[in-house]
Amino acid sequence: MSRKVRACLIIIGNEILSGRTQDKNLSYLAQELNKIGVALTETRVIPDIAETIIETLNECRAKFDYVFTTGGIGPTHDDITSECVARAFGVALELNDQAHKLLQSHYENPEDLNAARLRMAHIPAGGELIDNPVSKAPGYRMENVYVMAGVPMIMQAMFQGIKHQLTGGRPMVSRSIGAYIAEGTIAGALGEVQKDFPDTDIGSYPFLREGRLGTTLVVRGEDPAQVDAAAARIVALVGSYGKEVIDESV
Amino acid sequence: MSRKVRACLIIIGNEILSGRTQDKNLSYLAQELNKIGVALTETRVIPDIAETIIETLNECRAKFDYVFTTGGIGPTHDDITSECVARAFGVALELNDQAHKLLQSHYENPEDLNAARLRMAHIPAGGELIDNPVSKAPGYRMENVYVMAGVPMIMQAMFQGIKHQLTGGRPMVSRSIGAYIAEGTIAGALGEVQKDFPDTDIGSYPFLREGRLGTTLVVRGEDPAQVDAAAARIVALVGSYGKEVIDESV
Repeated sequence: MSRKVRACLIIIGNEILSGRTQDKNLSYLAQELNKIGVALTETRVIPDIAETIIETLNECRAKFDYVFTTGGIGPTHDDITSECVARAFGVALELNDQAHKLLQSHYENPEDLNAARLRMAHIPAGGELIDNPVSKAPGYRMENVYVMAGVPMIMQAMFQGIKHQLTGGRPMVSRSIGAYIAEGTIAGALGEVQKDFPDTDIGSYPFLREGRLGTTLVVRGEDPAQVDAAAARIVALVGSYGKEVIDESV
Repeated sequence: MSRKVRACLIIIGNEILSGRTQDKNLSYLAQELNKIGVALTETRVIPDIAETIIETLNECRAKFDYVFTTGGIGPTHDDITSECVARAFGVALELNDQAHKLLQSHYENPEDLNAARLRMAHIPAGGELIDNPVSKAPGYRMENVYVMAGVPMIMQAMFQGIKHQLTGGRPMVSRSIGAYIAEGTIAGALGEVQKDFPDTDIGSYPFLREGRLGTTLVVRGEDPAQVDAAAARIVALVGSYGKEVIDESV
């Protein structure tokens, strides 16, 4: 097996932790990374507190191949991600010429590029800009850390611009099998399938649909042949309980 | 100001990190904790890997007043939360009489309480059960750690059963003010309001509605008088730019 390439997402923002805003970046990033063979291995949601951001950044960038951050790079006083990234890397936060020009080109009226908005052109020294096709104010990369916006539409556009820079392992493939069978009924035999296919991850997720209890069984792995073989065993297993597979997807 | 009571949520499950399932427990827990004066200060989403679960549990239970976990307490091989909690606390994972009886009462046919389902009656020694009115298999508390199910309906029912055990500080109150004003326009003056009300947290969240760009400004704090005063300043500020407040909520 190829070495697993592991990534961590750091979601920065009080609005997620207060429950006011539902995060949408985790599932998007997970699925996109998956396609290029990078596993999202951990996610942290942290508040707008400088010490917490700096500590979390330094711990995670040492621990994971890639770190992605979302949130806190806008123009307001609570946008403190960039000053924290600079402090975590021990570099200055400075006006970046290229970012400055991008913002100048975005505002027709020069007065609109006020001191607050100019904060968005301040980038930790050495940062390589990440294009923001939506509203110009860029993200940036510092070594293995990709600093992106929190607004999902902007975050997604930024990610599409940098994904070619990432080096993944073999992409994960998955097969999912749903049936009206209780997970406790199939659990023992399912554990045996997992033992027989140690290079796959088999997950079991109960659901309630039209008042009926069922389970979705998901096989994930790097080797499509192993994933298919494990999935075939699960389909046969469901049949052995006299149940039908109600949906199957790749 | 009263001491802040801080909580951490640990979401355990490959299905969240693969992007297959959208987490719904964070925002629910955040809002419920908020009502009783407990601040959700951090959330970690981690995979079904024993070492990661144990390390994260031990780090977070030392660091926060309360730790809540969701996920990984079902009957299948990938449900390893309870064995990890036992290892983190250095105690045995043992068949709990009370949990055993709960499950026995749930299954009419004794054969249905198979070895896999019996795993759900194994609780770390010393654990105090948390009622599961939906499907009987209980959660449990170990010191300041509350171990709950991942299925939102069950997690919510469990939380409602234990929230009276939690001791919070003063509940946070919040006011939110929306206007069709760009956050970069108001950012400088908003920073001044934040400086004048240091005991509140003022957040700024851009939105796009019917093609128009606006910002929601949120004031949070423990002292309703301070929150109201800061909100009044923000309403006046919006007016000073010739903009109307389009929605305001408590």
